[in-house]
Amino acid sequence: MASERFQKALEKMMEYQPKDNPDIASHTKLIEYYEELAPDLPSLIVEFPFGDIYSRSALDKKQQALVTIAGLTAFGTEPQLELHINTAFNVGLTKDQVVGAIIHLIPYVGYPKCLNALTLVKKVLAERNDVE
Amino acid sequence: MASERFQKALEKMMEYQPKDNPDIASHTKLIEYYEELAPDLPSLIVEFPFGDIYSRSALDKKQQALVTIAGLTAFGTEPQLELHINTAFNVGLTKDQVVGAIIHLIPYVGYPKCLNALTLVKKVLAERNDVE
Amino acid sequence: MASERFQKALEKMMEYQPKDNPDIASHTKLIEYYEELAPDLPSLIVEFPFGDIYSRSALDKKQQALVTIAGLTAFGTEPQLELHINTAFNVGLTKDQVVGAIIHLIPYVGYPKCLNALTLVKKVLAERNDVE
Amino acid sequence: MASERFQKALEKMMEYQPKDNPDIASHTKLIEYYEELAPDLPSLIVEFPFGDIYSRSALDKKQQALVTIAGLTAFGTEPQLELHINTAFNVGLTKDQVVGAIIHLIPYVGYPKCLNALTLVKKVLAERNDVE
Amino acid sequence: MASERFQKALEKMMEYQPKDNPDIASHTKLIEYYEELAPDLPSLIVEFPFGDIYSRSALDKKQQALVTIAGLTAFGTEPQLELHINTAFNVGLTKDQVVGAIIHLIPYVGYPKCLNALTLVKKVLAERNDVE
Amino acid sequence: MASERFQKALEKMMEYQPKDNPDIASHTKLIEYYEELAPDLPSLIVEFPFGDIYSRSALDKKQQALVTIAGLTAFGTEPQLELHINTAFNVGLTKDQVVGAIIHLIPYVGYPKCLNALTLVKKVLAERNDVE
Repeated sequence: MASERFQKALEKMMEYQPKDNPDIASHTKLIEYYEELAPDLPSLIVEFPFGDIYSRSALDKKQQALVTIAGLTAFGTEPQLELHINTAFNVGLTKDQVVGAIIHLIPYVGYPKCLNALTLVKKVLAERNDVE
Repeated sequence: MASERFQKALEKMMEYQPKDNPDIASHTKLIEYYEELAPDLPSLIVEFPFGDIYSRSALDKKQQALVTIAGLTAFGTEPQLELHINTAFNVGLTKDQVVGAIIHLIPYVGYPKCLNALTLVKKVLAERNDVE
Repeated sequence: MASERFQKALEKMMEYQPKDNPDIASHTKLIEYYEELAPDLPSLIVEFPFGDIYSRSALDKKQQALVTIAGLTAFGTEPQLELHINTAFNVGLTKDQVVGAIIHLIPYVGYPKCLNALTLVKKVLAERNDVE
Repeated sequence: MASERFQKALEKMMEYQPKDNPDIASHTKLIEYYEELAPDLPSLIVEFPFGDIYSRSALDKKQQALVTIAGLTAFGTEPQLELHINTAFNVGLTKDQVVGAIIHLIPYVGYPKCLNALTLVKKVLAERNDVE
Repeated sequence: MASERFQKALEKMMEYQPKDNPDIASHTKLIEYYEELAPDLPSLIVEFPFGDIYSRSALDKKQQALVTIAGLTAFGTEPQLELHINTAFNVGLTKDQVVGAIIHLIPYVGYPKCLNALTLVKKVLAERNDVE
Repeated sequence: MASERFQKALEKMMEYQPKDNPDIASHTKLIEYYEELAPDLPSLIVEFPFGDIYSRSALDKKQQALVTIAGLTAFGTEPQLELHINTAFNVGLTKDQVVGAIIHLIPYVGYPKCLNALTLVKKVLAERNDVE
């Protein structure tokens, strides 16, 4: 499992993790949580998303985070949305931009999905004090 | 209906329309198409999205377009996704960025929704020759 | 298959069919279209929905139609939404009420799903001349 | 923010709030909960839904509530569905009608989404004693 | 309500219930939970799914369980997915097969919905010790 | 791009392609259709799904096909559902099993999504004569 492909993807993944706040949701915790279910789950979680997708150069890190938050707000999958609100702040998006991206989606996916996403923003903001 | 609120929202809306290609999907066509169904539909379509949402300053026009495309790719509502792929090109996003935003969502919403969005990108690219 | 349960459900179903317009979408056509795939499909399509659900008395026919249209607009399943826009008109809902139900959902499910539903209302209105 | 548009929409909103039960989910609580995230969120939450949509006359209050519950049951966005089950009772729908609307959707959106909606009806009924 | 149709469907339903673990999620508990809301809910929950659908012979019990888990993972309706992960183990699917079915869906519905389903597998496995 | 990883995944993919019917929907056509949009799209479409997911051993080919069809029926993404109904027949599932899997989902995702899936089964059956 510690193949070159895995290592490279893991390094890419670490660029998006929280700097020095071990308590907030992170991809590292995610891998630990699921690895008991199947031996290839860690590589499945790391290699394709970070080796193949996040390493593309079409979007910068902030654009990647905006697109991710928008997709997850529309889908309403909350644990992952919380994780990626954290990721958005990790890569330097401001509170106004993250809140603004979610508000921008109200006409497209409706208030309920957007308000549920804003609830998660409140949760994340309450857990970290490094967001401007 | 030609209230000040409507006029201001309409001006904002026009900032996102195609410059000189009347054949591609646009918000102007959308309003004409639906207005026979209810007399307040034009103002409903223009005022809230453009007067209240697109006029917010948290995101710039390109960020607004990326977020919109991501939300619509996740939702799979195709006529509006086609319209907003056009809007994305109208405000200056490149082919690589639009394609890249959709590819970025593969891990989050799956291949099928993303491939269907890419089908619409092919359709839009075939209809306009001003995209780099 | 011509059991008492099937017959009773079929009679209930016929209460919601178009009076004298054989060209518009109807449950009768639906059954014919699918019956080649499995011998129990006609009874599956008729008995549970019409024998068990539509025969409940909690809602009247117009309320049933409003609820159905709202659920299908949110889901975006278009052939069935077209069928039930017809059903709504069959049981006496007006154009303003059907359009109004869809517009009412804009804040909850967003413009794209509602505009797609309104496109189907335009299609249905073009096919029948008995709607006020 | 206390514009005429906001005031008028707020008055319309108050027609749908619980009469004298401050403990149940309400739009008033919702606004307070989110207003710290962006200064325009209260007006975004009040003005478009209540100034533009709920003030339309195509549907009466009970029909608006049925349509809302149906859309939210299909979408599965639970905090808002709980809020609007309360709203439905506030405007005079009976337990049989609210339960009946959700049961009516079983054939269209499946048991799981409808059972989750019925779980919320049980929660709301346990919190208020004014529902017949 | 204790009609022949209900009895036959109930017997079919019992074939899928947990053998001797009353604490885990089951259809029997489900019926008890909802029956206060409407007198016909028990028959609605039992008769159509188990009398009409589970009694079909096109798929065997394990195939039925795989298809159910896949549909519910895509839909993301969690209480029912938990119930049917239990059902899958009741009819003899292994941990590797249930986990494998969910992992198989990653390319089609994305990681978030699949990881949420795997969270429920972890919960179910922690509650029962008869899964190989 | 013709890396070892790509070649191995491509070989796995070919195990699921139609034997000698070039006219029906296939993964080979899919790759050709999209490759103009981004140079890494062929490897993104082939490597993760077939190199990482389809090469897992937890499910056999028929189980993989049932799970895929179920997920896509729930999601309602039609071009991919059509492709995978073909794949299901390619790996030896019968018409009764494919139709049976879709009918099995009616209680979980509702009639509309299942009837739309059955429409695609009719389309696929009309295009090939090797299905029993």
